[in-house]
Amino acid sequence: MKTVGIVVEYNPFHNGHLYHAQKARESAQAEVVIAVMSGHFLQRGEPALVNKWARTRMALQNGVDIVIELPYVFSVQKAEYFAKGAISILNELFCDSFCFGSESGQLAPFLETLHQMEGSSALLDPLIRQYMGEGVSFPRAQTLARESLFGQQLPLDLSKPNNILGFHYIQANQQLAHPMEPLTIKRQQADFHEVTLGSHPIASATGIRKAIAEQKGQLQTIKPYVPAATFAELQHYLQTYGHFHDWGMYWPFLQYRLLASSAEELAAIYDVSEGMEYRLKEAARQSTGFTEFMQMVKTKRYTWTRIQRALVHILLHVSKEEMAAATESVRYTRLLGMNKQGRDYLNQIKKNMEVPLITKTAAFKESLAFDIKAAEIYALGLPSYSSHSLLQSEFNEHPVILT
Amino acid sequence: MKTVGIVVEYNPFHNGHLYHAQKARESAQAEVVIAVMSGHFLQRGEPALVNKWARTRMALQNGVDIVIELPYVFSVQKAEYFAKGAISILNELFCDSFCFGSESGQLAPFLETLHQMEGSSALLDPLIRQYMGEGVSFPRAQTLARESLFGQQLPLDLSKPNNILGFHYIQANQQLAHPMEPLTIKRQQADFHEVTLGSHPIASATGIRKAIAEQKGQLQTIKPYVPAATFAELQHYLQTYGHFHDWGMYWPFLQYRLLASSAEELAAIYDVSEGMEYRLKEAARQSTGFTEFMQMVKTKRYTWTRIQRALVHILLHVSKEEMAAATESVRYTRLLGMNKQGRDYLNQIKKNMEVPLITKTAAFKESLAFDIKAAEIYALGLPSYSSHSLLQSEFNEHPVILT
Repeated sequence: MKTVGIVVEYNPFHNGHLYHAQKARESAQAEVVIAVMSGHFLQRGEPALVNKWARTRMALQNGVDIVIELPYVFSVQKAEYFAKGAISILNELFCDSFCFGSESGQLAPFLETLHQMEGSSALLDPLIRQYMGEGVSFPRAQTLARESLFGQQLPLDLSKPNNILGFHYIQANQQLAHPMEPLTIKRQQADFHEVTLGSHPIASATGIRKAIAEQKGQLQTIKPYVPAATFAELQHYLQTYGHFHDWGMYWPFLQYRLLASSAEELAAIYDVSEGMEYRLKEAARQSTGFTEFMQMVKTKRYTWTRIQRALVHILLHVSKEEMAAATESVRYTRLLGMNKQGRDYLNQIKKNMEVPLITKTAAFKESLAFDIKAAEIYALGLPSYSSHSLLQSEFNEHPVILT
Repeated sequence: MKTVGIVVEYNPFHNGHLYHAQKARESAQAEVVIAVMSGHFLQRGEPALVNKWARTRMALQNGVDIVIELPYVFSVQKAEYFAKGAISILNELFCDSFCFGSESGQLAPFLETLHQMEGSSALLDPLIRQYMGEGVSFPRAQTLARESLFGQQLPLDLSKPNNILGFHYIQANQQLAHPMEPLTIKRQQADFHEVTLGSHPIASATGIRKAIAEQKGQLQTIKPYVPAATFAELQHYLQTYGHFHDWGMYWPFLQYRLLASSAEELAAIYDVSEGMEYRLKEAARQSTGFTEFMQMVKTKRYTWTRIQRALVHILLHVSKEEMAAATESVRYTRLLGMNKQGRDYLNQIKKNMEVPLITKTAAFKESLAFDIKAAEIYALGLPSYSSHSLLQSEFNEHPVILT
């Protein structure tokens, strides 16, 4: 069966995602669409609005055949590692192609940019370090370094988050022994960061989350922008757990963790850069909420998402050492859900797979250690009773099977 | 000026404590009564009902002239270390005597027991280990070992908590270069663990706390058993912070901490004995509250207070290594409050003191690291706004001065 892979977060699944899944299937002429999806904590260093099981159900009801979890070690990471982890999983699952959204809908700019930059990392890296030494953030230093090296000649605007991701998908794919066919489709929405909902049925996930946050318990506003299954899942989640997840929910734990840990302990955490630990501790002492805390912590040197990712790792106690070990050793595909078509495909390829296809958590506690911890901490944000049932779900929940 | 020391927790200060302070002054014929008091976390591994400043004010209004904080490294400890820390502080403050409550009101049984046991530790210790190897708790193993060595001949019942403390006071005092004069007075209440309030004006602190817990926001029941200043302080605390402190308040943080930490991290915590870490993690996963958690965790091998102390150290991230270093190096007396008489005395002795007399937190952040952390974590248990003001108090609050 011909198969196309996509890399997603579905926070939450909206009409733009539906379009992406359909177009991917079309342009790849695929019978099977496989989505690699972040678990409970996302690339931008945030808890997902609803848990991964609910997001899996949204996907399976809207044109995705198989949902695989992107492990924590890859999901809460900068674009390069995020892309590398996701692409390697699609490759393990024998995808013929993968398809991502881009601003232009053209592959050529990605391939040309990659070509130009290949071999120039020996020149780029010292420049990036130099700019960072002047106190700017990593993405900004990258942009400045590229501009000073290539002028305005690069065919791709690498300051756009979606272009950065696409670039790294292409790059990771080319490093495979047997690369998949890359495909891209033009994104149908105005901007990644668009925060207001317009008349077009496709809105950004950011805009949808903002609308949800502003109208607690009232979902009507977002109805035009999401498939019916998303709307039903969100309603059901609210009825079951009483809340959607956001950083505010985890603020008490983060504050506690920052105050109870020594500066040395914090410095050992992944993505906590030199000196950041003192700033974090002091801000934790002064702040009464997450947003106030972030305002106090942010500097020109680090982007908002860069800090948020460090905070997720702090919340989960993930050390530099553990992350280094895990990045080397994490090789598995964890099934979150599938439909009939997806099951047939997995049955067909399973015997040839080189990494385990995990369907039962209990048998893979060691490999899944970070993902299990993420699920447990994610659950703790909810009020006590709900969190208790959600705490158990990591062990009791089976892959979603849509027949 | 003639000075007597007492070792206290005042959780909360009640009529029995008033009697103790008065009798200590009388029997020592002292002009100054110095209380060494546990800070925010107590010897039995519990948060104090109200913070140390409120408890200091209770004491100063009821016959105590100076209140000194027993540092965290000594307060959340078994009787032996607790006593050693407290006695050494009273000695640093040049107390002529110290006075403790006992079941009999007689010193002789303490001195005789100490005499009999001295030199027999070479016989006792292996016996204690042997009994513990059979799976009983440390205090129980001690009792069994003593019985098998001395029969029923010991003049002191060392299974009673107050006798154990008294015994260790006497023992620690004798190890000083210049021992103070030991004094004891007969306790006026039925039993340390008495939990019902009777017609007698002296009730146990346990009974008083239980009555408070059962009638949230209603303090009338305890009025006959506490001095007016205690009653007023408790009322004021409730108005200011909305809550008294108990373990339930810290349960979300404890559960989070147990789930976010690896078994190895937990095993490195002070007082976490071999294998306990797995039991704690599993119970944290299963429980919806502190009491349910404790029921699940407790075994014949460990007493309730032994487990609670380990949990306080887990809550505060205090490692075996840090505690060992601190026990060696912690040498300071931190002033929590004094009246006119107390001030005169401290002015008089201050130049001869060998350890710093700390009145300003900010200048001693390093020495006070555990006490500051204890104050911060203690504050986090309260709802956000109150905890914010209480968080700051460790730095802003000056010693209570009663003129």
